[in-house]
Amino acid sequence: MKIMVLGGDGFCGWPTSLHLSEAGHEVLIVDNLSRRQIDVLLEVESLTPIAPLSERIATWAQVSGRTIGFELLDIAHDYDRLLQVLKEFAPDTVVHFAEQRAAPYSMKSPKTKRYTVDNNVSGTHNLMCAIVEAGLDTHVIHLGTMGVYGYGWSGTAPIPEGYLEVRVDTPEGDLAREILHPANPGSVYHMTKTLDQLIFAFYAKNDGVRVTDLHQGIVWGTQTPQTQRHPRLINRFDYDGDYGTVLNRFLMQAAIGYPLTVHGSGGQTRAFIHIRDTVRCIELACLNPPRSGDRPTIFNQVTETFRVIDLAKLIADITDTPIEHLENPRVEADENDLIVENRQFLELGLEPTTLSQGLLEEVQEIARKFVERVDASKIPASSKWRVAKP
Amino acid sequence: MKIMVLGGDGFCGWPTSLHLSEAGHEVLIVDNLSRRQIDVLLEVESLTPIAPLSERIATWAQVSGRTIGFELLDIAHDYDRLLQVLKEFAPDTVVHFAEQRAAPYSMKSPKTKRYTVDNNVSGTHNLMCAIVEAGLDTHVIHLGTMGVYGYGWSGTAPIPEGYLEVRVDTPEGDLAREILHPANPGSVYHMTKTLDQLIFAFYAKNDGVRVTDLHQGIVWGTQTPQTQRHPRLINRFDYDGDYGTVLNRFLMQAAIGYPLTVHGSGGQTRAFIHIRDTVRCIELACLNPPRSGDRPTIFNQVTETFRVIDLAKLIADITDTPIEHLENPRVEADENDLIVENRQFLELGLEPTTLSQGLLEEVQEIARKFVERVDASKIPASSKWRVAKP
Repeated sequence: MKIMVLGGDGFCGWPTSLHLSEAGHEVLIVDNLSRRQIDVLLEVESLTPIAPLSERIATWAQVSGRTIGFELLDIAHDYDRLLQVLKEFAPDTVVHFAEQRAAPYSMKSPKTKRYTVDNNVSGTHNLMCAIVEAGLDTHVIHLGTMGVYGYGWSGTAPIPEGYLEVRVDTPEGDLAREILHPANPGSVYHMTKTLDQLIFAFYAKNDGVRVTDLHQGIVWGTQTPQTQRHPRLINRFDYDGDYGTVLNRFLMQAAIGYPLTVHGSGGQTRAFIHIRDTVRCIELACLNPPRSGDRPTIFNQVTETFRVIDLAKLIADITDTPIEHLENPRVEADENDLIVENRQFLELGLEPTTLSQGLLEEVQEIARKFVERVDASKIPASSKWRVAKP
Repeated sequence: MKIMVLGGDGFCGWPTSLHLSEAGHEVLIVDNLSRRQIDVLLEVESLTPIAPLSERIATWAQVSGRTIGFELLDIAHDYDRLLQVLKEFAPDTVVHFAEQRAAPYSMKSPKTKRYTVDNNVSGTHNLMCAIVEAGLDTHVIHLGTMGVYGYGWSGTAPIPEGYLEVRVDTPEGDLAREILHPANPGSVYHMTKTLDQLIFAFYAKNDGVRVTDLHQGIVWGTQTPQTQRHPRLINRFDYDGDYGTVLNRFLMQAAIGYPLTVHGSGGQTRAFIHIRDTVRCIELACLNPPRSGDRPTIFNQVTETFRVIDLAKLIADITDTPIEHLENPRVEADENDLIVENRQFLELGLEPTTLSQGLLEEVQEIARKFVERVDASKIPASSKWRVAKP
């Protein structure tokens, strides 16, 4: 299968590209290297020392004998080249990771709010428009987020995989409909993913584009079997206040004896998935496309749910690190339940990596190993969700 | 009240600016004159001879003694200036018409699809972002469309004003929720309005911005009491295949003896409102803002519904013009019912102009009067909704 991976240099994109390459697919990475440029501007670095993309690709060729292509391209702002690359490569599948993916970064300033909307919406719309213009039957797999649903909307009812059955009173009796689950995004970043959903729904309906939208939980872990094959293949591990996700931040904080920073009570329940399962899910999605004319297929790409405070306690116990409660910068409920349906991927054969299996490995192999690379000044989360009025 | 009218040179924006000015409000028009530039590129003109905006404003000052300000500004691409103008003028209300508003134009080509998404989404998001950055308590009134609901979703049930009561089965029994009505846009243009809705919902929730979203029907008619006060104040009347709306196109076709072009069977039911009522609705919305912290207020800004074929027959009868059925370029049902709730504006005192009152006036005062300005070659609608695959 010919697969284009947009954002193939990123935290999820790179291990996905390797996984798909190893599985025998022809992979072309399209990336504008924006994630590395943002690191430069934020003056932070991945905890793990990541090689430049061309070195990564060359190393992969050495260890695997497989070639991955690379096209330096900004899909949000170079439509003509995107169209040309699509026509030339004629992918069976495009995996679309090419979005600004940090909620705190998206709330950092007016500039980052606007960048996130512009990059994510223009990128997604350009992709759909170009596939139609090129006349391709390409299957688009998009990395969405559990955050499109919001938290607590349905109380203790499980969150379905994208579509919700509702009933409406009408003069002629009950009307039953299956609708896209109502959106309730918690940040500008999450909001862009809810906009993406409507773009996909339109192009699926109007043009018959085949779309799979993966509503992913918080990804934890660092390595996959492929990224472990050589030090220059190592995956990114972010721990800073903008791009570090909660569990990876805890692991690194524990490694340097920094208190585990919990926002609010930590009663927020979130869904998680290991990076090893992310790459498997994406291959499963590649192999199981919807048909043209179908509405977008939506998977909840999650394997476990935890309360943030329980995660912190787990790591505090393993590593003997104290917990510190900080004010929550987000506009959200301090506590929520979360039950997520994820039957579709399990039925397709996914065998999840659970937290209890992977946690110690992460502490020892990543957080402690690269501890001397930590800049502790970058740990605090500085983005405020709501600006005090002057 | 200080009111900024974004897109104040347009078909709805200009008469709205005059109406608000006459009512004693301080009006500042912000416009990038994109609508006139698109006319240049499409090689079409308003049937009515419209004066340049500065002349319009000068004429209004002569006949009314009232001053309207004008700022030439592209809100989608000059954020810094938008922010500065907002800070300087500190509007109580911003009326946001500054969007590409023609469905056929939005489906004309990849370029116009992308222009529509970029202009509309960036413009709306820049506005919300700038109001928050400026620390203003400005009320945003946005011109949305009935098309966000799609047609036929709820069968014969009335379309509520923005929010729909639904029930969901849960393990603990029925869960009742009021949700934003599911979106089902029929073009890229309509899609952008569904994206706008989610942007408004987020900024209302996260930042307490006060938003009113007006889901407007198809506007017909040309003049308001203010635009009739001097020939140089005359409003725009579009009849071309891209920007001409169905009823105005019929009126002009009848005036030149061109068959009334009905797409498909004409069984599509649509909602309508006269331009005189549009401007009144907007003033009512200005005077009745939501409170900070409220979800966006949504009004259905419509007064009547008609099947397209019935409109054609009505005008055929008055004017003795034949009807011609053409293939429908849109991807939509050939027939639909449409019942629309519009109690909120009626309760606020709106007294609708009905089709039976205004139609003959339009035929005589506008369509026949300017008949020599018609370029009949611009009448056919050329945009295809779905491109044949190569």
